[in-house]
Amino acid sequence: MALIVQKYGGSSVGDIEKIEFVAQKVIDTKRKGNKVVVVVSAMGKTTDNLIALAKQIMPNPPEKELDLLLSTGEIVSVALLCMAIEKYGEQAEGFPGYFAGIKTDAFHTKAKIQKIEPTKILNEIKKNKIVVIAGFQGISSEDSITTLGRGGSDLTAIALAGAINADICEIYTDVEGVFTSDPNRVKNAKLISVISYDELLEMASSGAKVMQSRAVEFAKKYKIPFVVKSTFKETGGTMVKELEVREGAVVSSVTINENQAKISIFKVPDRPGIAGKIFSAIGEAGINVNMIVQNVGRDNFADVSFTVDINELEKAKKIVENLKDEIGAEKILCDTDICEVSIIGIGMINHPGVAGRMFNCLAKNGINIEMISTSEIRISCVIRKKDGQKALEELHKEFIE
Amino acid sequence: MALIVQKYGGSSVGDIEKIEFVAQKVIDTKRKGNKVVVVVSAMGKTTDNLIALAKQIMPNPPEKELDLLLSTGEIVSVALLCMAIEKYGEQAEGFPGYFAGIKTDAFHTKAKIQKIEPTKILNEIKKNKIVVIAGFQGISSEDSITTLGRGGSDLTAIALAGAINADICEIYTDVEGVFTSDPNRVKNAKLISVISYDELLEMASSGAKVMQSRAVEFAKKYKIPFVVKSTFKETGGTMVKELEVREGAVVSSVTINENQAKISIFKVPDRPGIAGKIFSAIGEAGINVNMIVQNVGRDNFADVSFTVDINELEKAKKIVENLKDEIGAEKILCDTDICEVSIIGIGMINHPGVAGRMFNCLAKNGINIEMISTSEIRISCVIRKKDGQKALEELHKEFIE
Repeated sequence: MALIVQKYGGSSVGDIEKIEFVAQKVIDTKRKGNKVVVVVSAMGKTTDNLIALAKQIMPNPPEKELDLLLSTGEIVSVALLCMAIEKYGEQAEGFPGYFAGIKTDAFHTKAKIQKIEPTKILNEIKKNKIVVIAGFQGISSEDSITTLGRGGSDLTAIALAGAINADICEIYTDVEGVFTSDPNRVKNAKLISVISYDELLEMASSGAKVMQSRAVEFAKKYKIPFVVKSTFKETGGTMVKELEVREGAVVSSVTINENQAKISIFKVPDRPGIAGKIFSAIGEAGINVNMIVQNVGRDNFADVSFTVDINELEKAKKIVENLKDEIGAEKILCDTDICEVSIIGIGMINHPGVAGRMFNCLAKNGINIEMISTSEIRISCVIRKKDGQKALEELHKEFIE
Repeated sequence: MALIVQKYGGSSVGDIEKIEFVAQKVIDTKRKGNKVVVVVSAMGKTTDNLIALAKQIMPNPPEKELDLLLSTGEIVSVALLCMAIEKYGEQAEGFPGYFAGIKTDAFHTKAKIQKIEPTKILNEIKKNKIVVIAGFQGISSEDSITTLGRGGSDLTAIALAGAINADICEIYTDVEGVFTSDPNRVKNAKLISVISYDELLEMASSGAKVMQSRAVEFAKKYKIPFVVKSTFKETGGTMVKELEVREGAVVSSVTINENQAKISIFKVPDRPGIAGKIFSAIGEAGINVNMIVQNVGRDNFADVSFTVDINELEKAKKIVENLKDEIGAEKILCDTDICEVSIIGIGMINHPGVAGRMFNCLAKNGINIEMISTSEIRISCVIRKKDGQKALEELHKEFIE
């Protein structure tokens, strides 16, 4: 007998038919002799619709009230899933996040979980009930309802699994698990059966849409293993846990991020403090910088390039232009016609040849590299957007197939 | 400076435009120097839509989960109204019913308020905020979310007004107040400026759709005066409070109830205990009986007739038919072609001639009376349904115009 936390996302509970399917799946798990806690998201587009309603009042609705509004979406899912579970003959107990003992700080719309008091949940499990919990929400010390940010239901499930010491946390979604590359773009992409937290984090920050990073970071921090699998297919599933460096496969996945833009600042006098000036201004504006490259030319002038998320380009550009005279730059150029391809794998650390192999592979295919950045388990190259698909396929062939 | 509770029903917050209108109305009240607590219902058809969703799972959804589901409707209204209030420059604090300290018993879907702990509300008022509370809902001692039954938001507002010792409770709705008769049916129907709790209760049970009786009963019990007025019109308004018997007008309103059906049991042996047998069986089935008439004939046989709500007719009929042999009745007949007209007024008690005047008025117009029942402040007659409209108009002319 195991204690299992299952999380079902918005597309898994998108309509009543799907909710009934999930109910049966949950009941199956219980009837195999397990205790089950279920975390659910809001149905389908509910959250988007509620945000749209609020935006009719004002473009930037106050965050505390927005949290109160959005929290209703998951509660609807909880109530309906409990009904469906009871329809099929098991007892269910539904909890809004704030009754489930999920205590957060007061940073509305992006609250952090501070503590989980799972007594109530454990009491209901002891009564042989299936416990259903609203994902994405908690309660602040001032008794305000908070939400954990987009994808917060994953975080609820993982944190809860940690708090009640669950044997396993299952994240159900509309894909079969984590793939070596996007299956819609690389026809030989394969399901990864086991992956480390770090690799999954690098994948998320390199353009793969699997899970929100916060949930994975939380799992890594507290060493909570979890499985990503499909709600509607029995096959597949990727186990995510702490892994030792593998001997065999060096690269576990190849990703592409097409939502990046490049800002280049030309002919900045090569003085100490210039880069600091630029990037602290950018950071203060809350803009995440992805990659930074600086070259010093022959004439004591430097060129600085960096990439940001494409929808933060305008904001970043304005900041840099305001600094142009102060830093003595000659010219500022923006380029949205780029993309970033990455190879990721915890094996890389011990294989110094991997980077060279990646650059050669791109060169062999006539693809020019504009920027390079590396971490312990990732190498990323910025290239022209038009070359992205080919780069993705060729790197997948080179390292994985 | 007064402490005012305002309640806005579902049609008053039916869309964003109306919510903004309500926000401005609330702000106006505050800027006149008052402290304001607002109780809101779910937007328009939200509650009906949520019920329909639950019924897709099962025709009779479990009540505890249904309460959790339905409670989200009012929370959405609270969040949106707070946003709108803040948009127009005042601070608002929104409370789901369970955070507002509304403690109920655990009878889900029809919970009774047991206690209100208004400390949190009063704290926010002290901070000069407009407090917005989700109507219709509370929390049981087991921390389950409960709802107070249809029209429960009126009850929330009135009970809250009592608990915080408000100077006045204003129930905003889509009519201008309480009328002497249904303005859609009686062209000379007039707005009543002051009416007693008892009269309003008798009106509600006699077919007038003004407010749920539970809210009025609560107001009467705790002597909480309130005003019924229109959200969107400045004119009108009816004050409801405890009244001494009036000197002047005897009859304050004329009502019609067309949702009644009559069951007649013919030729029952006139023995003690027969009526008891019939009506305890009906009562045990949870069916409310409206009017009962029994005549003893010459031959020691009695005829018993009674009226019930038309949609409980089938259930009641079955019960009576099961008893037919036991009580020795000869025949049972049902009649849905009836209606009940009533005149209501606290002045009646001291005016014995009123009943005769009512019967004469109907007779003069060729309308036959089939059953009569009276209370201290009401006289009702069952007549043919086809005569209902004429009876209503003539009685209004006789007693009010």
